[in-house]
Amino acid sequence: MNFKIERDPFIKALQKVQGIVEKRTSIPILSNILIEAAESDIEITATDLEVGLKGKYQAKIGKEGKITVSAKKLYEIVKELPNLEISFSAKENDWVEINCGKVKFNIVGLPPDEFPSFISTKEEVFLEVESALLRKMIEKTSYAICNDETKYNLNGIFTKVEHTENGQVLKMVATDGHRLSISTGEFIGTANPELLKGVILPKKGIYEIKKITDEGDGILQFAFINNSAVIKKAETTLVMRLVDGEFPDYTRVIPNSNDQIVKAKTVDLIHAVKRMAILSSEKFKGILLEIYQDVIKISSSNPELGDALEEIDIKYDGAPFSVRFNAKYLLDVLNVCETEHVLMKFKNELSPSIVTPDSDETLIAVIMPMRI
Amino acid sequence: MNFKIERDPFIKALQKVQGIVEKRTSIPILSNILIEAAESDIEITATDLEVGLKGKYQAKIGKEGKITVSAKKLYEIVKELPNLEISFSAKENDWVEINCGKVKFNIVGLPPDEFPSFISTKEEVFLEVESALLRKMIEKTSYAICNDETKYNLNGIFTKVEHTENGQVLKMVATDGHRLSISTGEFIGTANPELLKGVILPKKGIYEIKKITDEGDGILQFAFINNSAVIKKAETTLVMRLVDGEFPDYTRVIPNSNDQIVKAKTVDLIHAVKRMAILSSEKFKGILLEIYQDVIKISSSNPELGDALEEIDIKYDGAPFSVRFNAKYLLDVLNVCETEHVLMKFKNELSPSIVTPDSDETLIAVIMPMRI
Repeated sequence: MNFKIERDPFIKALQKVQGIVEKRTSIPILSNILIEAAESDIEITATDLEVGLKGKYQAKIGKEGKITVSAKKLYEIVKELPNLEISFSAKENDWVEINCGKVKFNIVGLPPDEFPSFISTKEEVFLEVESALLRKMIEKTSYAICNDETKYNLNGIFTKVEHTENGQVLKMVATDGHRLSISTGEFIGTANPELLKGVILPKKGIYEIKKITDEGDGILQFAFINNSAVIKKAETTLVMRLVDGEFPDYTRVIPNSNDQIVKAKTVDLIHAVKRMAILSSEKFKGILLEIYQDVIKISSSNPELGDALEEIDIKYDGAPFSVRFNAKYLLDVLNVCETEHVLMKFKNELSPSIVTPDSDETLIAVIMPMRI
Repeated sequence: MNFKIERDPFIKALQKVQGIVEKRTSIPILSNILIEAAESDIEITATDLEVGLKGKYQAKIGKEGKITVSAKKLYEIVKELPNLEISFSAKENDWVEINCGKVKFNIVGLPPDEFPSFISTKEEVFLEVESALLRKMIEKTSYAICNDETKYNLNGIFTKVEHTENGQVLKMVATDGHRLSISTGEFIGTANPELLKGVILPKKGIYEIKKITDEGDGILQFAFINNSAVIKKAETTLVMRLVDGEFPDYTRVIPNSNDQIVKAKTVDLIHAVKRMAILSSEKFKGILLEIYQDVIKISSSNPELGDALEEIDIKYDGAPFSVRFNAKYLLDVLNVCETEHVLMKFKNELSPSIVTPDSDETLIAVIMPMRI
């Protein structure tokens, strides 16, 4: 097997798979990528058995065939090569020879037959979602994904198509038990049974979907095969094993009688929370919100460092009350609110509070207050 | 004590001392800075007892006095404040109150009397060195400073004024025992006894001098008081305790019979060494240079990864020979050679080799080869 390829597209192709391959693996071949040359393209595949990525790239194929080599080393080498055409050949005993100008590398590979097989899609019906919409929905929920690996059913984003009065919507939900974020987007087409029931897309897979959406607008195609999600965009195919678990019933977490409504300027609130967080304790990042008519006092205190207080103007006409939050939880959601104002909806100082952008119903966050 | 100051100059002033204060200290006051308000300025001082920095900044002084507060926390707070005038007041029990718009901070301080005293300079004769020259000389030597703290006499840059046939020059020398770098610059004025004998400026102090030279051109003033160097530029004074030890006689390390001279294009050699280093072993970074008439073959090999080879055109008309280097040592000096070509001067494969910019005698590096 041998082919020739330009350096820059080869660098980009190799960069794409760096996040997929396992860094410290007991299965050496998972540190490698599979390179297959056929007709006028090469296909590059990486997988850690949970998430896999395959991409197709133009190349001049001299002889068809396949080989696996270290994803990291090959990327390091190609990045440093002169900007000339690269010649790549598989040799005996799975060695690879790379030539570029007066530079020559011989690197050890592993037999391609040992590389895990990639899901093949043929007759599946693919759903279509706008890349830009999905990017926004991931941004608005991924901050709340649980990082505690023992809570495996929370290590991803619950994704579901729901029927509403006006048709159907796509919902993405993430929670770590302390806060919850729900993003809603338009969904056109016919949902399949998996999406109507809801699936949990794994955290690592979510970040790979995000990367694909970051590359540009367009349509992403989704299918579900054997407990895996398959996502296609142009010549890239991403596969991820769905999280096997029950996602908690988030609809029961959203309070429906929070009638104490505070309206604040988003940027003012972000800055105030950031400042007050400086003196909040490392461990809990607790800040106190004292809510009065049309003014909120935000404060923090730390026996070792001192205390801080700030007032900002708000719209509120209820009875005064106080609530304490982890500053990070509040900041995370404020940072993804894109409207000039945000609404904070309270029932009392101990019940779950709602934070949403003003007049934008595509994002609802629920945050548990800290005990005062 | 109280004063008012604009946010942006206050941020810059606090940023300057962040590298000086001790991060993990058993003496809490060394994490603090001393702020003194007098007449129309505040002075901010930081020290870790080895290196100290004092700067003077314009402010509106309400009441003269002094206080110490955490360098890190004050910086974090001021960075997040709105861009308005900041009011800073020392209160009872060494507390500090900071007001800015509707934001208020109270932070704990420590008594200013406990802050270590700063060297006072009055009648010393200051030597003068161009900021730009010193910046270049530090760049060309600091890479070779020894990081092994047990070799304390190598943990800095040996700095000396030497008399030559044409007058006098400033020399800076650093070595870690494996490589050595000497930079030479113009020196005008009368050197004092300390500089004629030579002093070792400590590593941390060198990096602080570098920061001052990076701020802009101009003149730096040097004096030596009680085993310390004092460096002044405009309203900034830097003090550092000299390394107390004998620097090795570097003149004996420079070989004088290296008559096998290779002339190579700097950028070609840098790229080749970088590429070959990819496959050299993590531990030794060894690369092999096979030198033939007008061509050099650079190669590396690693039993776990593979091997690599590259040829570059050079000028050389001696007998063929081979030499092995730590790739990092070669790269470090090549990166500070500013000429289009570099010279590598060899005696044989085991003797110290010289690397210098072509037709530029202000930098000489000596590198010990690895055993072949």
